[in-house]
Amino acid sequence: MAKNALPVTRAENFANWYQEVIKAADMAEHSGVRGCMVIKPWGYKIWERIQRLLDNRIQETGHDNCYFPLFIPLSLIQKEASHVEGFAKEMAVVTHHRLVMEEGQLKPAAPLEEPLVVRPTSETMIGEAFARWIESYRDLPLKLNQWANVVRWEMRPRLFLRTSEFLWQEGHTAHATAEDAMDETKTMLEVYRQVVEDMMRIPLIPGEKSPGERFPGAVETHTIEAMMQDGRALQAGTSHYLGQNFAKAANIAFQDETGQQKLVHTTSWGASTRLVGGLIMTHSDDDGLRLPPIIAPHQIVILPIIRDESARGPVMEACQKLAGQLGQQRFAGEPVRAFVDTREDSAANKRWAWIKKGVPIICEIGPRDLENGTLALFRRDLAPNEKSFPKQEDLVAQAAAYLGEIDQALFDQANAFRKAQSRDDITDFADLKAHFAGENKTGFVRAKWCGDPGSEGGLDEFGVTIRCIPHEQSGTAGKCVLTGKDATTDVILAKAY
Amino acid sequence: MAKNALPVTRAENFANWYQEVIKAADMAEHSGVRGCMVIKPWGYKIWERIQRLLDNRIQETGHDNCYFPLFIPLSLIQKEASHVEGFAKEMAVVTHHRLVMEEGQLKPAAPLEEPLVVRPTSETMIGEAFARWIESYRDLPLKLNQWANVVRWEMRPRLFLRTSEFLWQEGHTAHATAEDAMDETKTMLEVYRQVVEDMMRIPLIPGEKSPGERFPGAVETHTIEAMMQDGRALQAGTSHYLGQNFAKAANIAFQDETGQQKLVHTTSWGASTRLVGGLIMTHSDDDGLRLPPIIAPHQIVILPIIRDESARGPVMEACQKLAGQLGQQRFAGEPVRAFVDTREDSAANKRWAWIKKGVPIICEIGPRDLENGTLALFRRDLAPNEKSFPKQEDLVAQAAAYLGEIDQALFDQANAFRKAQSRDDITDFADLKAHFAGENKTGFVRAKWCGDPGSEGGLDEFGVTIRCIPHEQSGTAGKCVLTGKDATTDVILAKAY
Repeated sequence: MAKNALPVTRAENFANWYQEVIKAADMAEHSGVRGCMVIKPWGYKIWERIQRLLDNRIQETGHDNCYFPLFIPLSLIQKEASHVEGFAKEMAVVTHHRLVMEEGQLKPAAPLEEPLVVRPTSETMIGEAFARWIESYRDLPLKLNQWANVVRWEMRPRLFLRTSEFLWQEGHTAHATAEDAMDETKTMLEVYRQVVEDMMRIPLIPGEKSPGERFPGAVETHTIEAMMQDGRALQAGTSHYLGQNFAKAANIAFQDETGQQKLVHTTSWGASTRLVGGLIMTHSDDDGLRLPPIIAPHQIVILPIIRDESARGPVMEACQKLAGQLGQQRFAGEPVRAFVDTREDSAANKRWAWIKKGVPIICEIGPRDLENGTLALFRRDLAPNEKSFPKQEDLVAQAAAYLGEIDQALFDQANAFRKAQSRDDITDFADLKAHFAGENKTGFVRAKWCGDPGSEGGLDEFGVTIRCIPHEQSGTAGKCVLTGKDATTDVILAKAY
Repeated sequence: MAKNALPVTRAENFANWYQEVIKAADMAEHSGVRGCMVIKPWGYKIWERIQRLLDNRIQETGHDNCYFPLFIPLSLIQKEASHVEGFAKEMAVVTHHRLVMEEGQLKPAAPLEEPLVVRPTSETMIGEAFARWIESYRDLPLKLNQWANVVRWEMRPRLFLRTSEFLWQEGHTAHATAEDAMDETKTMLEVYRQVVEDMMRIPLIPGEKSPGERFPGAVETHTIEAMMQDGRALQAGTSHYLGQNFAKAANIAFQDETGQQKLVHTTSWGASTRLVGGLIMTHSDDDGLRLPPIIAPHQIVILPIIRDESARGPVMEACQKLAGQLGQQRFAGEPVRAFVDTREDSAANKRWAWIKKGVPIICEIGPRDLENGTLALFRRDLAPNEKSFPKQEDLVAQAAAYLGEIDQALFDQANAFRKAQSRDDITDFADLKAHFAGENKTGFVRAKWCGDPGSEGGLDEFGVTIRCIPHEQSGTAGKCVLTGKDATTDVILAKAY
């Protein structure tokens, strides 16, 4: 049996494997502060790629970036009742603004008149500003976004997936009509789908959340749901139609064309560093991370093979020349990102380091390649010892084609996995329960649901939730898998992160 | 006398004028949270430009971005004594991680075992990670940077200049030798100088801080000092050589080539949203903001002049075509940023809005320009009613030249102002005191200083500090302006923000 680069495989222990992928790629680690992580350079570069791609689309759809305060006064967060209920259990609270040294020990001093919470999300803060800024229909739509850190106190942290502090973008918009706000909600879900599915190559099911899974304060929550390689679902981004709930709470009113005072309709939508966790759990294998080319900070890493010092100069030169030529090529609308790793270490060590970091293509150029104009090429979508020996000029000419193939291969593999782990032939509750009974019984089940309030309760017992009501409905009739009633609505059921 | 766009002039009340520039350009405002600001889209776009330019240079000089937690445990921040002393009075302290509703009022619940401070800066947090990561000389230098929010409790907030929460980058590096760390300290000061002086066009004096003005825990602090239009100094960025102070506190040790255990030498350096305040106070005039072209989010704004609806189509088309052609031109290594303002409003209103927002060039194209291929051109470095009528094709061909002229004009004006407000002929304390006596007596004084500890104390009385010991020294001998002793060191004295 082939030995893998990681000390544990997905099949042996998925949770440990996940940690080992992150460690082997040197992406992040837990910090000394409970629930908070340190994002190391390779993990942060991946996040910066996601940020850039998402930010481009947020701008293209007419949103402006801005920045609101980290702290929210208690009186403000209290204004929307279901919102505060949803977040109260996990809020970091600032109560003092000074430290004093007493008996060799630092102690909080100077209590605040009103405690502040560290934002878990900014609807209340931004709603208060919207109320001041919006006067007339001419001020609408108001479409803002911010890139920020947020804090939701976390008792069982997992790197990227669940951390007390995480990085995200949160969009907040106000509209004159419910229809405009619903359009916005859907538009931004589609923006998330484009980045996560078309660029990060994570197959998605876009849909609406059932009432039990809605964002606290939302009228509708829309989501993109992905399947991880342990068959569990990951909510990869959400877009909320908030109706007039926050408009009422903060009194965000405008004068319409006829002079009437009306409340606005608002939306909010967010995607976070959790996406990095989803990327890892969708594509990685037992040798480490695998990065879709559009996300990879380096798409092609070039390793100079120097067995004798006299060849160092020419080999280095050939590597740099190749990197330069690759940088002139374009893939997915951007210059190809090629990188020459000149560190002093063995070729095998360096190759394995980049395999574990998930780089799509690794090339090696040694003295013998100089005459022939060749190189050794390793693709991250193939077995690690599988190599080909194209001409350097052919790699340059076909760089985009190679990257395109890898991009497609990763998506196809993820799709095939999801298909194999999905069922749509379960029609009653007993079968559903049997399907999911046991810690490792996972996967997606597409079944019918009657939509009755409270009908979801029975799922708690075996740790399953309705992940979403897919936007793409089959339109067939059947029996509700929860109640046995007649039903026409398809839902996706799964265990989730 | 000409009427200005702002309700108050620099001469009438500089502090109010500053607020009015920000308001007229719609850049930022105070939030409901004491000391915290909301950065609005135009202000944030300017910050994003500064970020991009600075981040490029941080990467080019071999630093990796990463992200460390927002919260620092008290036990960690306590480790470096002078550091904690320097920041204790202004720290936001998190003491609880839950809220409960009691008698209709939210209250903090679930006290933390150990309180956390919201980072005022991250030396202690990052030092703790460095101690884990660094083992051998092969791990050095370690050069990291993060873009983050930090909190220093502020009793007298001013937008951008002094806010309880602000955005910044903080670089943190570790080196094998003092020499390497000093080189890094100087390199990063030069990076700041390049961005702030060469791109933001703020004339600077780079130098070293006197002991009384050092960063808490630093061995040397280097600074770039700018003069605002009220004659006060603004510290625009600092770079610290920390020696082995933080290495000792966190035990950041490495094995050198000979197998010996040694402590590393560290540096840190930061620049913040305060730079936006410096930009405003250097370049703006009584009509509002003026932006140096490299910083301007839009460099050229094009206004369609539509007096009769039949001309709308062709005028809009001409404007869009011009914007497209301008976007093909390059200035300072980037495509020219042209923007067509299609909002429904009078041409005069729109022009004044962009004047107040500081856009370098405004063009108007109306129906009569269609035949002649002309436009009306307004430059922000000239009087607001001064216009020329170049051909559209000439503007395209000379876009970079126009922007270059404006860039130079803003720098020349700022330089001339600083020169007029600087003196180097004050040689004794009585004259120095007389020069600065009174609230509005400002400007830079270059004088000799003996370097005696405690000699700076007398300056408190009239609100002056030694801003820096300029790196460029005259090399002449004279008498210390503070003590009358023989002295050869030049210092810059000023009142400061």
